[in-house]
Amino acid sequence: MPQQIYHHTFANGLTLLAERMDHVRSAALNFLVPSGCVYDPTDQLGLASVLSQMITRGAGERDSRALSLALDNLGVDRDESVGQLHQRFWGATLASNLAPALEIYADILRRPHLPPAELPAVQALALQDLQSLEDDPKSMVMVELRRRYWPLPLGRDRRGTPRGLKHITGTSIRRHFERTFGPNGTIVSVAGNIDWPTLRDQVERLFGDWPDAAGRPLTLKKALGGRGHLRKDTTQTQIAVAYPSVPFGHADYYAAQGAVQVLSGGMGARLFTEVREKRGLCYSVWSSYQTFKDRACILAYAGTTNERAQETLDVTLAELKRLADGVTDEEVERVRAGLKSSVIMQEESTSARAGALASDWYYLGRVRPIEEIQAAIDGLTPDAIVAHAKQYPPRDMTVVTLGPKALKLSADTDN
Amino acid sequence: MPQQIYHHTFANGLTLLAERMDHVRSAALNFLVPSGCVYDPTDQLGLASVLSQMITRGAGERDSRALSLALDNLGVDRDESVGQLHQRFWGATLASNLAPALEIYADILRRPHLPPAELPAVQALALQDLQSLEDDPKSMVMVELRRRYWPLPLGRDRRGTPRGLKHITGTSIRRHFERTFGPNGTIVSVAGNIDWPTLRDQVERLFGDWPDAAGRPLTLKKALGGRGHLRKDTTQTQIAVAYPSVPFGHADYYAAQGAVQVLSGGMGARLFTEVREKRGLCYSVWSSYQTFKDRACILAYAGTTNERAQETLDVTLAELKRLADGVTDEEVERVRAGLKSSVIMQEESTSARAGALASDWYYLGRVRPIEEIQAAIDGLTPDAIVAHAKQYPPRDMTVVTLGPKALKLSADTDN
Repeated sequence: MPQQIYHHTFANGLTLLAERMDHVRSAALNFLVPSGCVYDPTDQLGLASVLSQMITRGAGERDSRALSLALDNLGVDRDESVGQLHQRFWGATLASNLAPALEIYADILRRPHLPPAELPAVQALALQDLQSLEDDPKSMVMVELRRRYWPLPLGRDRRGTPRGLKHITGTSIRRHFERTFGPNGTIVSVAGNIDWPTLRDQVERLFGDWPDAAGRPLTLKKALGGRGHLRKDTTQTQIAVAYPSVPFGHADYYAAQGAVQVLSGGMGARLFTEVREKRGLCYSVWSSYQTFKDRACILAYAGTTNERAQETLDVTLAELKRLADGVTDEEVERVRAGLKSSVIMQEESTSARAGALASDWYYLGRVRPIEEIQAAIDGLTPDAIVAHAKQYPPRDMTVVTLGPKALKLSADTDN
Repeated sequence: MPQQIYHHTFANGLTLLAERMDHVRSAALNFLVPSGCVYDPTDQLGLASVLSQMITRGAGERDSRALSLALDNLGVDRDESVGQLHQRFWGATLASNLAPALEIYADILRRPHLPPAELPAVQALALQDLQSLEDDPKSMVMVELRRRYWPLPLGRDRRGTPRGLKHITGTSIRRHFERTFGPNGTIVSVAGNIDWPTLRDQVERLFGDWPDAAGRPLTLKKALGGRGHLRKDTTQTQIAVAYPSVPFGHADYYAAQGAVQVLSGGMGARLFTEVREKRGLCYSVWSSYQTFKDRACILAYAGTTNERAQETLDVTLAELKRLADGVTDEEVERVRAGLKSSVIMQEESTSARAGALASDWYYLGRVRPIEEIQAAIDGLTPDAIVAHAKQYPPRDMTVVTLGPKALKLSADTDN
């Protein structure tokens, strides 16, 4: 059955995307608001996270408790999260409850109370969230990797700093909300058993007169890069690596995805086979891809015993380099099968589709039809992947380790 | 559209369950084999986990690498895991690839190579998995809670012990496989775009002549219970609590679910509101339900700063006790909405349905029609939940904490 995808951009700049899925009874909604942690003032790092916690504590006619209950009563499974560039509001419920849920989200996004009396509790939670990183070495090494790899503020962690959290006031939250919440740059996407004209009219009524956010200035500094070691008395050593790739939307994007899949897609992939299965070096090893609009990277992670950490790092880096030496037809066939299967499985999930609509629009300004994605996957060849790997080898790497002892990078690692 | 659920028990005892979902292109499969860690010999704790890692390292005509590639080539997203009572083999792929995937799973379950040469790598991985618990206080406190709460061996952790892992040999793995892998007690469930007669015939051909497993003796010891503290120099204190409830299938099962949901279902639930939202005591707090065939418990967890740990424990326990004092109509309405919404969303996922078919069959010997579940949810009342909470109050509690300092249980905690 053909995809039924709809799009409308309102006069104030708000983008609405929808996909009608006839055979489900649920609907998922997704708001991307350009109020991520990159916009936190430097003396109040953590402000977006605190705002994200405050914003559901009462909105419109409802106080904090009434708001939670109203969403619970609609059976909305929901989550609010803060990324580098966006705050995300995600919810899934019965399609028949979508309209009343949207009314509540309009209150949250446009008319939150942001009650100063609740700030101390929210600050305490935010501080705990930050401190709990200390007990979570896996997350800690990735936070430090991103901080070094990306130009600040792109490399910021949403959790902020103890000092930044302390400086946040009721007034600064309100000002930050006014500065960053508005229709320009905001994307609403809905997937499920929806009726497009009804949905469009409702969103127009709820958000059509939403005034612009005041501004979201962003200046990038030079990335720190290089090598970092976090000394910690752990039983395992954590290893994290990042190096440049092409962003989503680039002509070589699928070749980059292919490269990551050769390394890390499925149980027969190279990192899993070489690092884990053959050598038993580490229980958890993977690589993945992270993108912004104009830059992207390949990440690799391994967690291993302190004794075998050096060997794990060496073997992992060797695998990253070996990509440029060649990729077999068999490997590409495997990668194609995995990607095609996951595309079709995502197509069956309202949440996955709502997320994909928003993400395609943000990066590409359009929604990729599923046929386009399948054709691109079918077109993957060993040559394209190798050519990409040669152009974007593991060079200018950022390497961060965490454990009792720092590790060595071999002499031929030219960074 | 009505559910299309099928069942067949073969002469050798193997149970096959299926649900046809017309409007999807994927299929999920799920094998439950009664070879969980409770059957590990006491001198080889961790054996089921090692077997679960070894069993995909070559089977039938394929060696380890060929087997991984064959499943990857079918686009199978898969996972093997070890629970108390079962090993689970889960896979999801395109419905058109289900038949060849089943052929491979028949090799894995019946004709694994279990190559002794690969044992050292698997043992090293298993040891790392065990050691990584040391760096993961959240998991560690739950492992210790289960060890104390359930009668051994039900409270065992699948990761085993360093000593147990060392004692495992190629021969002991083979013997354990022969003793525990067989059709009696094994459940295969499939959900997705399947054709029942074709599936049943294929499963009969692949597994119809599978001989019985030699035996899975199980004797329960007395539970340890009580209080435990794991002293560790962490920045956060972890708190875990368990106390008895009624098992899945009991007449009060839905009342027990309702009680857990009043405590922890949705953002307006009591633990979230009282511990997190109002007091800002801890970032993560939840309760849940765990069941075996003949016994079950309510679990509660909170992770908090060391300074506020005592208050967090006190408030959490007070909330558990307060259930018996009354539940409002409003709360039950909220719980019903949440449960009904999640039932309908699960109905749209092949993986969730494959899991539910197997779990219903294991506990109840039948698959609950969705109408039955919805009627039971509709029938939930404050009285039923309170009556249940009075009959199963937080008494005979097992309490485990992890952090720099042990906590006190108040005098009126009668255990």
